[in-house]
Amino acid sequence: MKQFRSFLMLIIFCGNFIVVAQEEPADYVNPIIGTSNYGATYPGPIAPRGMASISPFNVAGPQNLPLEKDSQWLSNPYVHENTFLTGFSHINLSGVGCPELGVLLLMPTTGDLETDHLKYGSTYKNELAKAGYYSTQIDKYDVRAEFTASTRVGVSKFSFPEGQANILLNLGIGLTNEEGAMVQIVSDTEIQGMRSVGSFCYNSPEAAYPVYFVAKFSKPAANFGVWKKPALYEGVEAQWMGYNGKTRLMEKSTKMVVGDSIGSYFSYNFDKPETIEVKIGVSYVSIENARENLEQETGGKSFEDVYKETHNAWNETLSKIKVEGGTKEDKTIFYTALYHTQIHPNTLNDWNGDYPEIKTGEIGNTKGTRYTVFSLWDTYRNVHQLLSLVYPKQQSNMIQSMLDMYDENGWLPKWELNSTETFTMVGDPASIVIADTYLKGIQDFDVEKAYEAMLKSADQIENNPLRPGLKDYIEKGYVTTDHGGSVSTTQEYNAADHAIALLANALGKKDDYKRFQNRSLSYKKLFDKNLKMLRPRLQNGDWYEPFDPNEGANFAENVGFIEGNAWQYSFMIPHDVPGLIKLMGGNKGFTDQLQKIFDTKQFDMANEPGIAYPYLFNYVKGEEWRSQKMVEELVRKHFKNTADGLPGNDDTGTMSAWAVYSMMGFYPVSPGDPKYTITKPLFDKITIQLDSKYYKNKELVIEKVGKGRIKQILINGKKHKGYFVSHDELVNAKILKIILE
Amino acid sequence: MKQFRSFLMLIIFCGNFIVVAQEEPADYVNPIIGTSNYGATYPGPIAPRGMASISPFNVAGPQNLPLEKDSQWLSNPYVHENTFLTGFSHINLSGVGCPELGVLLLMPTTGDLETDHLKYGSTYKNELAKAGYYSTQIDKYDVRAEFTASTRVGVSKFSFPEGQANILLNLGIGLTNEEGAMVQIVSDTEIQGMRSVGSFCYNSPEAAYPVYFVAKFSKPAANFGVWKKPALYEGVEAQWMGYNGKTRLMEKSTKMVVGDSIGSYFSYNFDKPETIEVKIGVSYVSIENARENLEQETGGKSFEDVYKETHNAWNETLSKIKVEGGTKEDKTIFYTALYHTQIHPNTLNDWNGDYPEIKTGEIGNTKGTRYTVFSLWDTYRNVHQLLSLVYPKQQSNMIQSMLDMYDENGWLPKWELNSTETFTMVGDPASIVIADTYLKGIQDFDVEKAYEAMLKSADQIENNPLRPGLKDYIEKGYVTTDHGGSVSTTQEYNAADHAIALLANALGKKDDYKRFQNRSLSYKKLFDKNLKMLRPRLQNGDWYEPFDPNEGANFAENVGFIEGNAWQYSFMIPHDVPGLIKLMGGNKGFTDQLQKIFDTKQFDMANEPGIAYPYLFNYVKGEEWRSQKMVEELVRKHFKNTADGLPGNDDTGTMSAWAVYSMMGFYPVSPGDPKYTITKPLFDKITIQLDSKYYKNKELVIEKVGKGRIKQILINGKKHKGYFVSHDELVNAKILKIILE
Repeated sequence: MKQFRSFLMLIIFCGNFIVVAQEEPADYVNPIIGTSNYGATYPGPIAPRGMASISPFNVAGPQNLPLEKDSQWLSNPYVHENTFLTGFSHINLSGVGCPELGVLLLMPTTGDLETDHLKYGSTYKNELAKAGYYSTQIDKYDVRAEFTASTRVGVSKFSFPEGQANILLNLGIGLTNEEGAMVQIVSDTEIQGMRSVGSFCYNSPEAAYPVYFVAKFSKPAANFGVWKKPALYEGVEAQWMGYNGKTRLMEKSTKMVVGDSIGSYFSYNFDKPETIEVKIGVSYVSIENARENLEQETGGKSFEDVYKETHNAWNETLSKIKVEGGTKEDKTIFYTALYHTQIHPNTLNDWNGDYPEIKTGEIGNTKGTRYTVFSLWDTYRNVHQLLSLVYPKQQSNMIQSMLDMYDENGWLPKWELNSTETFTMVGDPASIVIADTYLKGIQDFDVEKAYEAMLKSADQIENNPLRPGLKDYIEKGYVTTDHGGSVSTTQEYNAADHAIALLANALGKKDDYKRFQNRSLSYKKLFDKNLKMLRPRLQNGDWYEPFDPNEGANFAENVGFIEGNAWQYSFMIPHDVPGLIKLMGGNKGFTDQLQKIFDTKQFDMANEPGIAYPYLFNYVKGEEWRSQKMVEELVRKHFKNTADGLPGNDDTGTMSAWAVYSMMGFYPVSPGDPKYTITKPLFDKITIQLDSKYYKNKELVIEKVGKGRIKQILINGKKHKGYFVSHDELVNAKILKIILE
Repeated sequence: MKQFRSFLMLIIFCGNFIVVAQEEPADYVNPIIGTSNYGATYPGPIAPRGMASISPFNVAGPQNLPLEKDSQWLSNPYVHENTFLTGFSHINLSGVGCPELGVLLLMPTTGDLETDHLKYGSTYKNELAKAGYYSTQIDKYDVRAEFTASTRVGVSKFSFPEGQANILLNLGIGLTNEEGAMVQIVSDTEIQGMRSVGSFCYNSPEAAYPVYFVAKFSKPAANFGVWKKPALYEGVEAQWMGYNGKTRLMEKSTKMVVGDSIGSYFSYNFDKPETIEVKIGVSYVSIENARENLEQETGGKSFEDVYKETHNAWNETLSKIKVEGGTKEDKTIFYTALYHTQIHPNTLNDWNGDYPEIKTGEIGNTKGTRYTVFSLWDTYRNVHQLLSLVYPKQQSNMIQSMLDMYDENGWLPKWELNSTETFTMVGDPASIVIADTYLKGIQDFDVEKAYEAMLKSADQIENNPLRPGLKDYIEKGYVTTDHGGSVSTTQEYNAADHAIALLANALGKKDDYKRFQNRSLSYKKLFDKNLKMLRPRLQNGDWYEPFDPNEGANFAENVGFIEGNAWQYSFMIPHDVPGLIKLMGGNKGFTDQLQKIFDTKQFDMANEPGIAYPYLFNYVKGEEWRSQKMVEELVRKHFKNTADGLPGNDDTGTMSAWAVYSMMGFYPVSPGDPKYTITKPLFDKITIQLDSKYYKNKELVIEKVGKGRIKQILINGKKHKGYFVSHDELVNAKILKIILE
């Protein structure tokens, strides 16, 4: 890291090295990637793992049909092909599958005040998106809008023409389907308030929660006010209410205003073109904390100051991996993917350490970072493995956050979002993440508490919110069709139990090791030898009939499987591929069946169950070329330097992490197992800086030599047998050399 | 006053004097009076001119039809004959004609938590209402609920049986038709939040404003939470929202929650009967101020402490007038009427002096009391005259508040409510109130500023919010039918101009005096000699046709008159009765026409335009007996010690002030003119304590001797000529003796 800083200094002090500066890792990031094809990323700025972010918001209004937020299940604040912009939202989720957040919409306009977003919205052009920066030109108002962000503050800069300028803060529209806000104008340069959000995936509405904010403007407004569009009043009284349901302007109001559809405006009268900067600090704890976040992170700083800091932060983060060889396009895809893995989980705590605890309603305080947005059904597969290798301090902090949640809530997280447990998806993935982390030597957390928490969810049959169907699972070996997604859920429990077994073994708990190792293989009871497929079984033990293995493709609902069908799940036994091979009738049966999935287009790159499938050929000696070929093809086909350059939802970085690993030539094929399987790197040389707190080597170098299929793998110059390498072997190697034919 | 305090001390220290204590003025107050027959008073506690008050709220829900708040134009939180109670509201208007406030509903329940007021509501019994105290037994829960209030804090005491007890604070339902609230539970003994109110008389919705509150509970809750019933979501997304529009319980939530239909609950599990006290401090400035109000006024005090203070305050206030003779019933009617004149205008400023300025959006600070709720179209007729005589310091403060409004808003108030100008009713009554006050010797305000403000509304033709139609009025002498209520408005402008003329004269502004004196007589242009009536005229000068003088009775809308018809307005020329007599064809014509109004039941005791009619016979020598008879009959008929004991809306004490004056035997017959006309007192002796700051005599005694009609009037033993007495004569007299036949 030290070396790299010197390199940065060189750039900063030598203007003529500007071309070099263009080649820093952060400069390769193209945040437009994933903003189409339901990638659900957004192009606006965020600091690494930031709480605040800014996204252009172009999903409201019929002008954006068919990709309009309320007209379908649309989970992103921005769609690249949409054209009607209604503001810039200040808290956003990246790459998720449900609409949430996307609120605190700031919008510059000119001329007479208009508060209806359907009327004040505009087309826009000349988008420029970089790590920590986004700008666009708003056609209707001829306003250049620029944005950056620190961890907890979104910073906007609007360049207005002369005349009346307005800056609207719309607290009504948002991506979330939760409603309700409060706003109070503090002075002619400051606004405070809150917006209610929650009900992620149309779940747990009682857990809706506020995001508090303070907005500071660089110049005092000539005029300001609040608008409110009240609900339509029905009944006898409505006849006397000429204003019923109509928007009201409350000019110069400094009073607290609440409502489902409210906003505030600051207006200016410019006799020449002028710029205004707006800083919006956010907090999930209080208005006071939002104000402190704003002051501590951006007080006294210009837009450019904040951008420079955030750009540097991104550069430092992304520079942990240096890639050489490969095209500029490849590097763009790679660093943007790495960037996408550094958004979620994100910071929940305020600058002073305060954060809302999960469930208790108390305000906790953390010394490290309290992370949130744990989309664990996705991220247990590769994101946390990437963090453990490249960003172990982050990963350690995330485990600590998960354990703190256990302390607060009594349970590890499943799909945690801003200290609410959304209970989205199935399985018990926290156990896998914790075991995987510990077994990779990141052990600066209370592993006994973690183990206790894992056992609780694995063994507590009654009132267990994490593992529905557990009784059948333990007694019969599988979840029955009494529960949705019975096969998928059984597989997930198997994977979790395997991870628990591995951790039990490492902790010397032999009995538990055996018990959970045994439990982890119960998927076999769902294996239909005739079909060579996993298949749902009823409570009475019978196979579910009629059964169509194709049913469930394209996320269609079906019996047995969650977001997939039998093809897309039957090979999701990463912890027991040899066992699966046996069930499939040996290497050939296994290879044929796996290849068939690709040949018949049952493979879905856009969803997690089959995400490791391309690597499974590595388990069959002589067939490894198929993994190499398949991975390369999939990277090329699905990961591009275009708006639709992700295969689908990024799933809080899971798709991107797949790309990062795949482009580096290895992959954590079996979550929980501290091992990787090897494929062809896309770059000639990859240098991963290792954190000295966790690893003794300073860096790990992966080199590729030659072209074509892999001929030989060398670790520190010594020939490596097979296509698997343990985590320890890898981080203790200085060079992993992959020699192609 | 000193003497009276000694008397009080005597009572407090001598238990055996308890019977004496029963006869203190405050003990005569029966707050049930006016709670039926649309009197619009409420039976719950308030301190003199308090900001907070508590009313049982029994106007929500079909159980209360036909007197259900949303099913008709109903302006009171409580109706005596209704039976379904849904809580106790903490800010309320007394005796107004439009639904407003009636929010912050506290409700004790037992058993399982229920947050739907239609389900948790209950019948009740054993109501006990006194000055500063109200209690009732809630049938469904067997809870005794008691209430008292300090100036800015409502205090409740609930006696629960054993078992689960709940105290709900419902921020959804309310009398106001404004919606929106915020709530945040601070701890297991404290809640803070706000409720949006406003749009009085279905007017000026953009001026809606918050009332902030802090609630403190005497015992920590075993469980607590917030509920929210969200708006029903429409559109495609609704299909995934199983919770759409359904109430959610947010248990243990300490987060800020906003919405149109929200509330909080505190629950207890009692193993024996227990009492809980709840103090709710309010503020129109901020939550912090609400908390300070609570602490300063009630911190460390028990329910009984607060009640004792408020009772004493009432006693001190009401003791300014001592009545002797008359029945207990008469005293009850009298002191309750006096009590009703001491509710509005009420305190707006917080304990620390902060208050929301009118229009500016700024927070002002006052050293005296900032008053609010100026229903001036009503109160200019007699309420302020009563205050000038008996409570001149209050009146002086009210004038100061009006002048501060002028400073803030650019205009004197018309119908001011919590620092919003509701522009309800017609005319320019502030000028009359100010002139009347000044001319009575209450002059500790900036009269030049007041005069400037009066001239502004009297003379500014363009953009004059107080006097619509002013151009025609000045040019033609009358408001034309281009404006609603053209005759009424002309009469009101005449009355105001007369007051301005009197003040101009007193200030030595001779030209203005003549000009406004002249303007004040322009009603004559609307006098139709054939009908002996005032009648609307068109823009072109023609009489409005077809014209029916009966049209407009019972508040029916009509051309020319506001809340009345030609009968009810044609004698409303109090400042020029001699001129009117002339127009009517002399004394006989005048008397006959006036008597006809009563005989044909066109007289309406329940509304202000004709309120002085019964006294007008005093202008005709020999006919004064009619006034005496009429006034006595009207007092007896309309003012009773029953729930329907007011003739209609109390109009923030105007009806009550009429009763107070009428029962004392004199009346301020011509607002602005510092004079009274005399009738028969109802009591044998009335002693009014005079404020030494404004009056040289310590007290004014009115004595009645004999029975039947008035035979002679003596002032300090000297025979007084006629039935009119100037304010100066009266306050400088020691005894006004009225000798009956």
